[in-house]
Amino acid sequence: MNFKVKCLGLQLILSILVCSTVLQKTFGQDKKPPNFIIIFADDLGYGDLGVYGHPTIQTPNLDQMAYEGQKWTNFYAAASVCTPSRAALLTGRLTVRSGMSSHKRRVLYPNSKNGLPASEITLAEQLRQVGYKTACIGKWHLGHKEQYLPTNNGFDYYYGIPYSNDMDKVVDIPYWEYWNQPDEAIKTNHFNVPLMRNTEIIERPANQNTITLRYTNETISFIKKNKDNPFFIYLAHNLPHIPLFVSKEFRGKSKRGLYGDVLEEIDHGVGKIIAILKEEGLENNTIVVFTSDNGPWLSFKLNGGSAGLLRAGKGTTWEGGMREPGIFWGPGLIKPGLVNGLGSTMDLFTTFSRLAGAKIPEDRIIDGYDLSETLLHGKPSPRKKLFYYRGTDIYAVRLGDFKAHFITQGEYGQFGKKEVHEPPLLYNLSTDPEERFDVSKENPDVINEINSLISDHRSKLVIGEDQLVEIE
Amino acid sequence: MNFKVKCLGLQLILSILVCSTVLQKTFGQDKKPPNFIIIFADDLGYGDLGVYGHPTIQTPNLDQMAYEGQKWTNFYAAASVCTPSRAALLTGRLTVRSGMSSHKRRVLYPNSKNGLPASEITLAEQLRQVGYKTACIGKWHLGHKEQYLPTNNGFDYYYGIPYSNDMDKVVDIPYWEYWNQPDEAIKTNHFNVPLMRNTEIIERPANQNTITLRYTNETISFIKKNKDNPFFIYLAHNLPHIPLFVSKEFRGKSKRGLYGDVLEEIDHGVGKIIAILKEEGLENNTIVVFTSDNGPWLSFKLNGGSAGLLRAGKGTTWEGGMREPGIFWGPGLIKPGLVNGLGSTMDLFTTFSRLAGAKIPEDRIIDGYDLSETLLHGKPSPRKKLFYYRGTDIYAVRLGDFKAHFITQGEYGQFGKKEVHEPPLLYNLSTDPEERFDVSKENPDVINEINSLISDHRSKLVIGEDQLVEIE
Repeated sequence: MNFKVKCLGLQLILSILVCSTVLQKTFGQDKKPPNFIIIFADDLGYGDLGVYGHPTIQTPNLDQMAYEGQKWTNFYAAASVCTPSRAALLTGRLTVRSGMSSHKRRVLYPNSKNGLPASEITLAEQLRQVGYKTACIGKWHLGHKEQYLPTNNGFDYYYGIPYSNDMDKVVDIPYWEYWNQPDEAIKTNHFNVPLMRNTEIIERPANQNTITLRYTNETISFIKKNKDNPFFIYLAHNLPHIPLFVSKEFRGKSKRGLYGDVLEEIDHGVGKIIAILKEEGLENNTIVVFTSDNGPWLSFKLNGGSAGLLRAGKGTTWEGGMREPGIFWGPGLIKPGLVNGLGSTMDLFTTFSRLAGAKIPEDRIIDGYDLSETLLHGKPSPRKKLFYYRGTDIYAVRLGDFKAHFITQGEYGQFGKKEVHEPPLLYNLSTDPEERFDVSKENPDVINEINSLISDHRSKLVIGEDQLVEIE
Repeated sequence: MNFKVKCLGLQLILSILVCSTVLQKTFGQDKKPPNFIIIFADDLGYGDLGVYGHPTIQTPNLDQMAYEGQKWTNFYAAASVCTPSRAALLTGRLTVRSGMSSHKRRVLYPNSKNGLPASEITLAEQLRQVGYKTACIGKWHLGHKEQYLPTNNGFDYYYGIPYSNDMDKVVDIPYWEYWNQPDEAIKTNHFNVPLMRNTEIIERPANQNTITLRYTNETISFIKKNKDNPFFIYLAHNLPHIPLFVSKEFRGKSKRGLYGDVLEEIDHGVGKIIAILKEEGLENNTIVVFTSDNGPWLSFKLNGGSAGLLRAGKGTTWEGGMREPGIFWGPGLIKPGLVNGLGSTMDLFTTFSRLAGAKIPEDRIIDGYDLSETLLHGKPSPRKKLFYYRGTDIYAVRLGDFKAHFITQGEYGQFGKKEVHEPPLLYNLSTDPEERFDVSKENPDVINEINSLISDHRSKLVIGEDQLVEIE
């Protein structure tokens, strides 16, 4: 080989190097759409994290995410109980449209016949169609039969339990008598809940003592396996929903009792996931969200959480039932700061679809807003209103600072009967987040505006066929 | 000059350089005792800061201090109302000993005859005797006559109001009728409160609209003037105690109404103080503490604050009355972290005396603990107990996780009559910070231990002569 050839060879190598760098810059790493991880707790209260004010539950990893990212203080689950909240998150739609909320049965049970209708489009389906690898790890609760499982709803991979961890109870003790036992008497094998991988049951009853740890580990494996693709992981912990279980390492660790232990194990897992993202160099192109499906289940006393200063809890349309911590982390993408604007779990559908380049379905009403300008650039949130449904009824509406309660009611039969308010109770949630001072008399114009909003909403509403009521 | 002389000269210069470096290391900059700034809010609730869970009051500077320093979640004011809380902070002693708490009048008024007895030793006196420059900026409330003023209690400099900002009210409208007016109707000249510099009245009525800003500016001036000395600044804002006033720049700024505006102006001032410490290169040798004198004054509705998840507020011995945010910042000194251990404002006396090298008085009982091992090295807090006094009676006692209520009572005549509990109500504040579940029946041994603690405490107690009751 003469000198010229050598030179040409070198030039070629250089050209390839330059070219591949340019390509990489334009279409490669820098243009790769962001990864998304939604970490979804179960029955966690607004006041249960350190950075949201809890004095004895230590959540240093979530606190740090809030500090490095965005801490939302008006972020809402789309319903006050499990099934509709999850359906709305994954479809970006109020579940009154899909039939996934009902008055008769508020959630799905092991004897339920149906699940999320096939006609609904999930966030996983949205993202998979633009090349994402998708995983659902944790609790599903949108139908346990094969056709309703995550793998039939846009997820490449599923590992978790198909409904709540307190279902399939196999000990024959009356309900409250059972739950009033000491923590030690409640065993994981009292609940014949299956643990599934894809469509197979791999363990029954699921050993819930180690389930939080295993969900975390499955998430880490999925990240490692799919790091060269964009990926979406929906990590839906089935805790701190009762019954509470925790791995040995965390038992007795917190000062808040078993409930605190469970949360500290979840927080520890969050820290491990953040660490792996950094280790794999993915932290600048991944958005991690932490929130929960609904407020704390107060009937379970110290085995339920705290809504902090907010009123009431799970099952109600008071703030404690639906407002949740909302932490968005992603050092390369999320503009750090406190966000007081409104957000809903339904907005994740729209926001993540947009960021991934997936088209928002046009053949149906989508209730999610695109929050990306807020997340990436700190602009005000585009969401100005929220409907608080129970079943197929509007119980309350938020418009800007104000919230009107048309109907109030306790949770599952506890904490207050159904009451209709005419005129509605009206609270200014910015000055009075605790919902203490009714200002309806002073603000008839606000009530009028909210009434128009409802009329408008109802005029376009087609109520979906009830999917929760039928049993086998 | 020959070569030898030149060499000697060089040697001499080198020796001086080396020597001065060694000196500096041993006695110079590195050994200068730390500066202390206590920022003390008035009637601020446990739940009023962002990092303690408030959803609409934005306190980014305090949040950042908590993140960079230590956030204490079991930090207590020493009393549930103003005068005794302040007396205890400055003397490191329960005010039952000094006579600064009483049943008949809970605080000092403009017609009060007395003040903090001369025999009491203040933290300012402690620090001044070891070379500190000392300033009291803000509300005093330990006696407005000359002999009781800050300049007669160890402070080189005083700038502020001598008692509460709602005193000397000069408009003749019945009490609640006055306070039920809209915010705009409450004017700063309705309160003939004097603003003083040292022992002179320099403005009357004090213009409270600009008072927060002026306290901040006075603090900054004092830092700049005294930066070559160790210094101690006790910055006791007289807000957010009602009546609420705020400078033009902050009016309408927060989403929480006037109360939020006031807090955001205080937070902004905190940020300016931190910035000046950095600008002057003092940040590595200064400890800044933020806390408040007692819980939120709930009777004033939206003009009072929020205790977050804690029960009740100002004037009571429920947690909301006395537990406060406790933020310790000092990047060169404070080991960052969350602290769940107990602390009291009385501990500042002991801790800062120790860190400054001032001898703790041995001729009297001091109730403060030395928290320096916790602050500097993250060790567990040495404080395991707390007495919750009202007047000269023990209403409650905290021992470790537990709190026994022997007497409960609402605030100034509101929210519940005096009730004696026999056996006491007992709460586990670690698992049940909201004081919801009485566990007295399950823990007779804890109650016995607390009773012994009280016997022991009372056996050594000499009740000081009531300083609050006499009027002119």
